[in-house]
Amino acid sequence: MSQANAIYSALVHYPVRDRDGQTVSAAVTNIDVHDIARSSHTFGLAGFLVVTPIEAQRQLVVRILEHWRSGAGLRRMPHRSEALAICAALASIEEAAQWVAAREGGRAPKVIATAARPPAGRAASSFAQVSRMLAEPGSGPWLILFGTGHGLADHVLAAADVLVEPIVGVAGYNHLSVRAAAAIVFDRLTHPAGRGS
Amino acid sequence: MSQANAIYSALVHYPVRDRDGQTVSAAVTNIDVHDIARSSHTFGLAGFLVVTPIEAQRQLVVRILEHWRSGAGLRRMPHRSEALAICAALASIEEAAQWVAAREGGRAPKVIATAARPPAGRAASSFAQVSRMLAEPGSGPWLILFGTGHGLADHVLAAADVLVEPIVGVAGYNHLSVRAAAAIVFDRLTHPAGRGS
Repeated sequence: MSQANAIYSALVHYPVRDRDGQTVSAAVTNIDVHDIARSSHTFGLAGFLVVTPIEAQRQLVVRILEHWRSGAGLRRMPHRSEALAICAALASIEEAAQWVAAREGGRAPKVIATAARPPAGRAASSFAQVSRMLAEPGSGPWLILFGTGHGLADHVLAAADVLVEPIVGVAGYNHLSVRAAAAIVFDRLTHPAGRGS
Repeated sequence: MSQANAIYSALVHYPVRDRDGQTVSAAVTNIDVHDIARSSHTFGLAGFLVVTPIEAQRQLVVRILEHWRSGAGLRRMPHRSEALAICAALASIEEAAQWVAAREGGRAPKVIATAARPPAGRAASSFAQVSRMLAEPGSGPWLILFGTGHGLADHVLAAADVLVEPIVGVAGYNHLSVRAAAAIVFDRLTHPAGRGS
């Protein structure tokens, strides 16, 4: 991965699908914030954003961050504070993109959407293809979106600059948690030679 | 991955290290059981075992399993029941290995240990090397161990048949959650060509 391109991730709680395909707002889960912040930092991402339109939920994220940044959590686990220092809570995907642009000299991020199954009518790029895009000098900044609930709403998948292929399991079962899926996506996109010899 | 070799995973709560390097027993976390069961099943593993010497903690695992196998969870999320059907709770790593052997015609599993940082005095195998071992016809069954807390105790790492290299992040930060690390390990070991073109 070229260090020249800043890559951000966002965990999106709205608009996402429920199990019937309806667009809903999902609740923020403490463990999602911790896990994906730690995975983002491990793989060198520039920031991790939590997206929810619900003010009380954004305040919950801020409380989680404060605990590790300055409270008892900092004394107990200083490395976790390091991971969470790059987090923020925003009200919408648009605000998340603006937040990234403001940190990146006004350059709006290109958006990469992820999905457990590809939507009808849109071709997905392979992990290898997207990894090459991320490494291309001057191509950034980038913003990778993950959906909670049953995944990002169709119009978010349709509007993204890039849709990355699903992680395919065996026997058709690919119900990874968003925490597990995000870890694998970061590993595949930023460590393309990671399997070494 | 050759379908001929059965691969099992185990989440070990004893013996593991605490932050001071002392050997302790860590508490079972509901979300670990869910996430690693789902990741194990997604990547075609034959089973996921939770190892804890504490009877009450094993009963907690059974209650988690029962909820998804037969209770309200089965009705709400049938696919999660499918993932959890391959789980069991055992009292020790030795009992976990015996459990695997009993399911595999009496053949004891070869044990693969994972660690966030390599222990002194033992060389680790690369993910590519271990992936080839797993694919070799007749080499199984295999049992991959993950440690909770601050990782597997040193004598477990020393006694394993294979020690796999750590997942290396950027800038020396590799404090992945065990949930995220397990997902990446399964992906790297069973999808060696997964990055495709």
